[in-house]
Amino acid sequence: MYDDTTPTLTPEEARRKRPRLAISLGDPNGIGPEVTLKALRDARLLKYVEPVLVGSAHVLKIHAKRLDARDVRFHIVREIPDEIPEGSLTVLDIAKGEKPWVHFGEIKEEAGRLAMQAVEVATDLCKAGQVDGMVTAPISKEAIALAGYTSPGHTEFIAGRCDTQAYTMMMVSGTFRVGLVTTHIPIAEIPQRVTSDAIREKLRILDESLRRDFGIGRPRIAVLGLNPHAGDGGVMGREEIEVIAPSIQAACDAGHLVFGPFAADGFFAMGGHRTYDAVLAMYHDQGLIPFKFAAFDTGVNFTAGLPLVRTSPDHGTAFDIAGQGKAAEASMRSALYAAIDIARRRMDAAQQQRKAS
Amino acid sequence: MYDDTTPTLTPEEARRKRPRLAISLGDPNGIGPEVTLKALRDARLLKYVEPVLVGSAHVLKIHAKRLDARDVRFHIVREIPDEIPEGSLTVLDIAKGEKPWVHFGEIKEEAGRLAMQAVEVATDLCKAGQVDGMVTAPISKEAIALAGYTSPGHTEFIAGRCDTQAYTMMMVSGTFRVGLVTTHIPIAEIPQRVTSDAIREKLRILDESLRRDFGIGRPRIAVLGLNPHAGDGGVMGREEIEVIAPSIQAACDAGHLVFGPFAADGFFAMGGHRTYDAVLAMYHDQGLIPFKFAAFDTGVNFTAGLPLVRTSPDHGTAFDIAGQGKAAEASMRSALYAAIDIARRRMDAAQQQRKAS
Repeated sequence: MYDDTTPTLTPEEARRKRPRLAISLGDPNGIGPEVTLKALRDARLLKYVEPVLVGSAHVLKIHAKRLDARDVRFHIVREIPDEIPEGSLTVLDIAKGEKPWVHFGEIKEEAGRLAMQAVEVATDLCKAGQVDGMVTAPISKEAIALAGYTSPGHTEFIAGRCDTQAYTMMMVSGTFRVGLVTTHIPIAEIPQRVTSDAIREKLRILDESLRRDFGIGRPRIAVLGLNPHAGDGGVMGREEIEVIAPSIQAACDAGHLVFGPFAADGFFAMGGHRTYDAVLAMYHDQGLIPFKFAAFDTGVNFTAGLPLVRTSPDHGTAFDIAGQGKAAEASMRSALYAAIDIARRRMDAAQQQRKAS
Repeated sequence: MYDDTTPTLTPEEARRKRPRLAISLGDPNGIGPEVTLKALRDARLLKYVEPVLVGSAHVLKIHAKRLDARDVRFHIVREIPDEIPEGSLTVLDIAKGEKPWVHFGEIKEEAGRLAMQAVEVATDLCKAGQVDGMVTAPISKEAIALAGYTSPGHTEFIAGRCDTQAYTMMMVSGTFRVGLVTTHIPIAEIPQRVTSDAIREKLRILDESLRRDFGIGRPRIAVLGLNPHAGDGGVMGREEIEVIAPSIQAACDAGHLVFGPFAADGFFAMGGHRTYDAVLAMYHDQGLIPFKFAAFDTGVNFTAGLPLVRTSPDHGTAFDIAGQGKAAEASMRSALYAAIDIARRRMDAAQQQRKAS
């Protein structure tokens, strides 16, 4: 008799069991490296993921020292290896001989550049199939602007690098899922960007992602209004009547389960987010105020619709507490688990498609 | 020896102990009459208030019958009496011989007209000093528009009838207080209405109301940004830099304790509303999404800055459940208690001023 409880897995099976994720370390002066290190100290998590940290090894060591994390061993590489060794954290060092200083809590051009270079590398690893997904630690929008990056955030940047505009920023915590029609733009620009085309595209992406990435057979989506009281019958804004309601109707006609438009304040107060599989909000704060309120520690940002899997924690660089060991890693941990789940679901689906054909 | 525990009060002392409040009954086809009747069935509440219900006695009786409220006795009057008898509910009947039908859940012109006439009468009773404050049950913005009223809501209408533009819509639940710079306007009009003058005026009104109406000696007020991430240093909108931050600075220079601008999503998630005495939000949903989320059942709408005291429950007409006996009266009860507290505080202050002079 031989022990068949530990069969030898093919490399592909091993990856489906334990997806390889690139983690871009975010702004060196923020809490990104800290929450990454803290989250990956949990041995249970490492059963389900092969992490590859992308950033400056030097920066990471400074953060590790601050955390007094003497038990962490780094495996520093310049190219992603075929095998990720267990018992140490693999770091893809992109800082190329420079030893960038860490200035905790400060907005620095070189920090912005390094943070975005890590995002570029992680994105390209995904595109090349060298990793199965990516998790992005927070960047400073001001620092990346200083470094000449014009993207308002990760989401837009990664989508651009994937040559797609068809994506939806989505926040996820358990079954509370919020998609956004508009994201990092001034309030003044929202009305002109809330178009029928935009809403219908976001609904299509959201519906597809709920099926493909979250395994929901027939997703039910609630759509919020734009104006106070969802315009109250046209009394305060006509976008609900002229743009949003017809877009919902079109989605319903196409066979999707889409409801609304709902007045945003009452919707969340009545627990609508617990009734539907996802909520489509018209703008950033409309979706993120209630989401963060309900799920601050465990919220995950997921970019639906991309060819690659990308999640991130839902907090920022938190410069005010950077380098102090105070940052909570719960959201980073949730982001890692979410990326693992979605990557596995996509790999399983691809495998089944191959079997079927 | 005589019993001095129940001294005879002067009429003025009696009013300070038990303020007289006009309650406008709201849309006859909504839940306004129902929540009013339910709240006033609580004998404990009647120790602290002399209620005068303003609306159609006929409508009220239909609602009472639906509720099977046989124990309620009505004292129907055409003019407000000097003495409000105990043991019955005084109804100032404004329906003048008509017997308006009730069509539960429907938007009707005559319902909108009756609802607003009650608001007019209640406002005028306050202005004439015949009552010490008013509580408004919900109206339908669509029904009042059908009836030719152009005000987007109670707040604007009552302020107009008091000949003032210097007021702030405020939501209150315990120590969670939110003031709004803009209220019932389309999203598209918000940026042009978020001016330095508007913010400074709202801050002044909020600060004064926190002192006068809520008894807070040195109020601390948090101000939210307008754009996502409060503009993130100008990357997504410049109103924070050009308008909001200078207005905060001006208020601080004038000796007020004003902080911000804060990114709205993170602010509430981190519990900022528990740290400050009030939050000034730039627009309706920015303040009301988190407020209703945290305080749905007990929220009170208070119009700060008016010469009269006016509160209301924070829910709408709830046409979908009108006439079914399902409506919760908690918010109406809170609105009554809030109006009682504020009216007493103002009467006490007036009394002390008279004593001092």
